[in-house]
Amino acid sequence: MKDIDWIAADWGTSNLRVWGLNRQCQVVAERSSDQGMAKLDRSGFEPALLALTNDWLPQNRQTPVVCCGMVGARQGWIEVPYRQVPCKPVGFDVGGGPETRDPRLRVFILSGVKQTGTAPDVMRGEETQIAGIISDDPQFAGVLCLPGTHTKWVRIDAGEIVRFRTFMTGELFDLLSAHSVLRHSLDGKGSDSVEFATSIEAMDAEAAQLASRLFSIRAQALVSELSPATAKARLSGLLIGAELAAAKDDWFDQALTIVGNGPQAELYAEGLRVLGQAPRIVDASHVTLIGLKWAYLQIAKEFP
Amino acid sequence: MKDIDWIAADWGTSNLRVWGLNRQCQVVAERSSDQGMAKLDRSGFEPALLALTNDWLPQNRQTPVVCCGMVGARQGWIEVPYRQVPCKPVGFDVGGGPETRDPRLRVFILSGVKQTGTAPDVMRGEETQIAGIISDDPQFAGVLCLPGTHTKWVRIDAGEIVRFRTFMTGELFDLLSAHSVLRHSLDGKGSDSVEFATSIEAMDAEAAQLASRLFSIRAQALVSELSPATAKARLSGLLIGAELAAAKDDWFDQALTIVGNGPQAELYAEGLRVLGQAPRIVDASHVTLIGLKWAYLQIAKEFP
Repeated sequence: MKDIDWIAADWGTSNLRVWGLNRQCQVVAERSSDQGMAKLDRSGFEPALLALTNDWLPQNRQTPVVCCGMVGARQGWIEVPYRQVPCKPVGFDVGGGPETRDPRLRVFILSGVKQTGTAPDVMRGEETQIAGIISDDPQFAGVLCLPGTHTKWVRIDAGEIVRFRTFMTGELFDLLSAHSVLRHSLDGKGSDSVEFATSIEAMDAEAAQLASRLFSIRAQALVSELSPATAKARLSGLLIGAELAAAKDDWFDQALTIVGNGPQAELYAEGLRVLGQAPRIVDASHVTLIGLKWAYLQIAKEFP
Repeated sequence: MKDIDWIAADWGTSNLRVWGLNRQCQVVAERSSDQGMAKLDRSGFEPALLALTNDWLPQNRQTPVVCCGMVGARQGWIEVPYRQVPCKPVGFDVGGGPETRDPRLRVFILSGVKQTGTAPDVMRGEETQIAGIISDDPQFAGVLCLPGTHTKWVRIDAGEIVRFRTFMTGELFDLLSAHSVLRHSLDGKGSDSVEFATSIEAMDAEAAQLASRLFSIRAQALVSELSPATAKARLSGLLIGAELAAAKDDWFDQALTIVGNGPQAELYAEGLRVLGQAPRIVDASHVTLIGLKWAYLQIAKEFP
């Protein structure tokens, strides 16, 4: 693996993904594991990184590893400070680097972004995706929706994050699916796009009814018929619909880009189409890697 | 224990509570355990009942045991059918009785109540509390709020349950406190009535923002200061506030009675006071027992 000049790492709550890049910043290798922040205590991060990259590291020099995500959180490898909005999405000025026992590693962790005042908020990882988008399109202005466990809505202008807002929609979906009384009704496969659209529209009309509508999933399964596919479509339609209703100021008549991949991003796009919008979707892994490259180029200037 | 003529049992998801009553329907003994429906498989119900009542049962006759609650649910001892609104809260016509191995037991399980149509809903246990209220005050008309894991709002008229609606507020509070990212911010004691009132008012103004406001608890704890007492007050204020906003048609300018006990009922009352209402609170255990007595008197007529 003598071509690997540096390593990019997307290290979130649930997963670790690494790319080995050559001097021209081309990807020559790629690996991933389930060793996310939530599974590791402070001493577990270096072994988890080495488990994926040991044979990529030459003996005679330090290999830079540029990381983004929850690896820099309070429960992460080291807590890296936040930069405050309005700000550019990635700057190395207040990032940090943990000491490593293996002398071949030189680890950099990118800082997150915070918002203080009357609407306190935080992000870790999404700022790197945003950097990737702005790196691709320096004139970008508009709103980004980044679906995830904690979905972010972010206003971008003049290359900066102006303000943002987080919804716990993904985590609510996971908790209700796994632990609540609704779990009895959700055990099965399939999807139901009509039910999803109906639920999106119901929340658009009266988002306040969320906690009551959620129980209807359980009740209808008990008193009449409700297939698991319809129950799941209703659960995600209600939760995403409540979020879209609450975030309407952010997307209505705006140029909206969804940053994501897989079924969750598609559900947000479908929900927005139900409400008459046509969002663009960009691939989250793609822009994460571009953002990490951008950060690396800044780091390389400071630490040649 | 020769005075015990029959047994009343409030058997919910988490707990079992039994009262031994004499021929004059006076309580002569009372016990409880944590052997709720959720901890038992089908064969576990009879032993759980005998563990509390074995020495109350004479050898020479069957002792009636009148049960209400989740013991009659699909995951309970036997599934007892629902009666459909509009209906009186308790009638023995479609209840049921499981076979027991111990010949000293004669078990009756009261049916729940369902609502079909466009707003499907179910209750099990609350109908017995409602029976207790109507038994005490046959002229009662108005709205009942029964806080719990699944809080019910019930419209009563002419001795009947007219319609009702369930909110998953209590379960959301438990899930978010125990399993979500917010748990890191809630570890501690105390309360904060100012923060609770502020959160109630915020949801009254814009209930749709719930999933976003919830994340502010985590974000504010990270970027500035948020005591666990304030975080908990905000969590319960947001969740109860969203429910009160959604249920406003049920309580605004209505005679409202809260059926509950302990801190949760008090929080609902406090939230309503913040919004300018003055609800009455009646003790849930008290009305459950009255409802079970009422059911027993009906049963005794049919099975002398």
